[in-house]
Amino acid sequence: MISSEIAPHLQFKNNGSKIIFFVIDGIGGLPLPKTGLTELETANTPNLDRLATKGVTGMSIPIAPGVAPGSGVAHLSLLGYDPFTYDVGRGAIAAYGVGLEMEEDDIAVRVNFAGFNSAGAVVDRRAGRLATEKNMELCKMLREIKIHDVEIIIETVMDYRSVVIFRGEGLHPDLSDTDPQATGEGVFPAPVVALKPRSKYSASIAKTFIKEANDILQTKEAKAIAELPNGQHLSILTRGYADRPNLPLMQHLYGLENIGAIASYPDYRGIARIVGMDVLYDGHELDEEFDKLEEVFHNYDFIFFHIKEADSAGEDGNFDKKVSVLEEIDKQIKRVEELSPEVLVVTGDHSTPSTYKGHTWHPVPFLIVGKWCRPDTVKKYNESECKHGTLGLFHATEVMLYALGNAGRIDKFRA
Amino acid sequence: MISSEIAPHLQFKNNGSKIIFFVIDGIGGLPLPKTGLTELETANTPNLDRLATKGVTGMSIPIAPGVAPGSGVAHLSLLGYDPFTYDVGRGAIAAYGVGLEMEEDDIAVRVNFAGFNSAGAVVDRRAGRLATEKNMELCKMLREIKIHDVEIIIETVMDYRSVVIFRGEGLHPDLSDTDPQATGEGVFPAPVVALKPRSKYSASIAKTFIKEANDILQTKEAKAIAELPNGQHLSILTRGYADRPNLPLMQHLYGLENIGAIASYPDYRGIARIVGMDVLYDGHELDEEFDKLEEVFHNYDFIFFHIKEADSAGEDGNFDKKVSVLEEIDKQIKRVEELSPEVLVVTGDHSTPSTYKGHTWHPVPFLIVGKWCRPDTVKKYNESECKHGTLGLFHATEVMLYALGNAGRIDKFRA
Repeated sequence: MISSEIAPHLQFKNNGSKIIFFVIDGIGGLPLPKTGLTELETANTPNLDRLATKGVTGMSIPIAPGVAPGSGVAHLSLLGYDPFTYDVGRGAIAAYGVGLEMEEDDIAVRVNFAGFNSAGAVVDRRAGRLATEKNMELCKMLREIKIHDVEIIIETVMDYRSVVIFRGEGLHPDLSDTDPQATGEGVFPAPVVALKPRSKYSASIAKTFIKEANDILQTKEAKAIAELPNGQHLSILTRGYADRPNLPLMQHLYGLENIGAIASYPDYRGIARIVGMDVLYDGHELDEEFDKLEEVFHNYDFIFFHIKEADSAGEDGNFDKKVSVLEEIDKQIKRVEELSPEVLVVTGDHSTPSTYKGHTWHPVPFLIVGKWCRPDTVKKYNESECKHGTLGLFHATEVMLYALGNAGRIDKFRA
Repeated sequence: MISSEIAPHLQFKNNGSKIIFFVIDGIGGLPLPKTGLTELETANTPNLDRLATKGVTGMSIPIAPGVAPGSGVAHLSLLGYDPFTYDVGRGAIAAYGVGLEMEEDDIAVRVNFAGFNSAGAVVDRRAGRLATEKNMELCKMLREIKIHDVEIIIETVMDYRSVVIFRGEGLHPDLSDTDPQATGEGVFPAPVVALKPRSKYSASIAKTFIKEANDILQTKEAKAIAELPNGQHLSILTRGYADRPNLPLMQHLYGLENIGAIASYPDYRGIARIVGMDVLYDGHELDEEFDKLEEVFHNYDFIFFHIKEADSAGEDGNFDKKVSVLEEIDKQIKRVEELSPEVLVVTGDHSTPSTYKGHTWHPVPFLIVGKWCRPDTVKKYNESECKHGTLGLFHATEVMLYALGNAGRIDKFRA
């Protein structure tokens, strides 16, 4: 069942209860062949295991059987939005992630600074992992670009990533990416192509912007900022042209009043703003996220708390690092428990097994603790055990209903 | 979730991986009261059990809770087609099963040779299990029938069964069966009735055909071929008037290029052709099916491998025979494993318990083995154990997504 589809049939009440929605990105794993244990099963996690013993558990399917999700759509699913109905483009996530607001006809697109060889092939999609400060200097230079009838808003995201909004009448987002998502001698950026007739004008605007941006990035001044290796020149790649997201806000859907988000990566802050959350933290440190939670807890009905580091370790194929991130989270989670929220949800948006080095479709361990949970027999929070929990294998889109129900926020349905 | 509904949202890639989709028809059973064990639980199946230990397991619901499916629809469901959206008539399955192709306005119908008493009651729906060679001789005689403006195509299926296609303008398939699906003194064939006004013309064509066929079958020559017992005369029963199937092909739905089918019964070859498979085997022997698989494996991305014998034993109420068929399959399945497909699915289309002597709604043991499976704790492939697997109780329409995902053929969904 899909929370956003069931919610309009329900009456919600604000009983003052507090929900902490704790998302460990990429938490699910696969066993190492030599031990037969996943990252979570290898990690020493006494606090998570105690929570599993107190609460009710299951395994959640992120999107659909066999389907590995991107981060954006996986979070929307977890927040109850049907992933096959609601679509939020990467450009929009990036724009909201840095605190921009989109207007009706805006197009937002992610822009990466990248290194090219003299033939124009993409040789480094991250421009030597450009530092955020340098990115800010380059964005300042790009703000010189003027296009007739179109306002251009440029903002640094992080490292080599930035975001551009095109604002003006008659713009539409059906445009292809120029980012080939690969590098090498024969790999060139693609041209911007209008994917629907209505987007021809938008394509011409995007092409003009890219050309002018690349002219600026080949000046001595820009080269001095980027400091690419000899022979490389700097240019941009664009990805995920998107229009303004138009999702029902969580306040409206679920009758929640004050919803906050604590996340250390811009994209998750973007998703949070798009569904109506206040973004409460703008740093990058795991322990600071917990400090912030303690500080703001009493002001919010619902806090989305996002930890990125488990996913990053999985993507890097670093099993031991993922284990140590999970152990660190386990230590810190005691602080969350001590806040005594009426409901604590602990789960992930998808699996990122270190052996796979990427997102997968594998179900994710899920745990909910609250006064009204009927505890099951599961005593460990991991892939092998949670599947025996009362909730069994279920869809992530159901999680919000469990959270709200256990918080006593859903009125009895009908007479 | 229904694979054919989710698939249009997804991007598939051909990564060269190979999927063997192993279907043991009617595999699920019910326990014998004296032992408390089903056929699968009674059989000695070390190879299937080893596969269950390596892979991930569950129980699949063929169509809907409590609903026993026919063979055609059960296979469509397993291949991901919504059984309540897609309908393929029995006549069409029979036509494609013998390699005929239907055109836009064609009607196909299954025709059984049957024995009648002198009063015209149906006394033997199978004409003494007529031999296929005799069926072929009778079909040759029926080809003499000419109807104005309608082309008639007649083909032997197997034993007492054949198929007829009516080809011409203005034909529609909404016609009732003449086969009463029962025998006895008071059981007469029903008349062909037009079920919609548009099918009145088709009804007149079918009636004319049946009358002329019965005239031919009552000649001395036909009687000599059929050799029915004294006093019985030969006639036909018609069943499953159907128009041309119009399903999206599996190539189109799932991005698979080369899809093959190995099946020993014509109806399963019919289903296979209707969804876009190459039919690779036309014999009837279990061990030959495995020979064929070894021969063609490297040419196909996806092979649907169908074994009929477990279902037949179940239908006959022969518990011991079903046990021995399952043991024989278990021996042979080692040959499948040795081909090292990236993904091996082992399941059935429905249950056919020997105690029930027919298809039932009971969930079917399901097993998938592949490099990226997260193994569960199940170590035996049977009804009691597979229900403890990670996949739990799920719908057969999800199987294709699991197969394609585990084969790495589904791209990450969105950003």
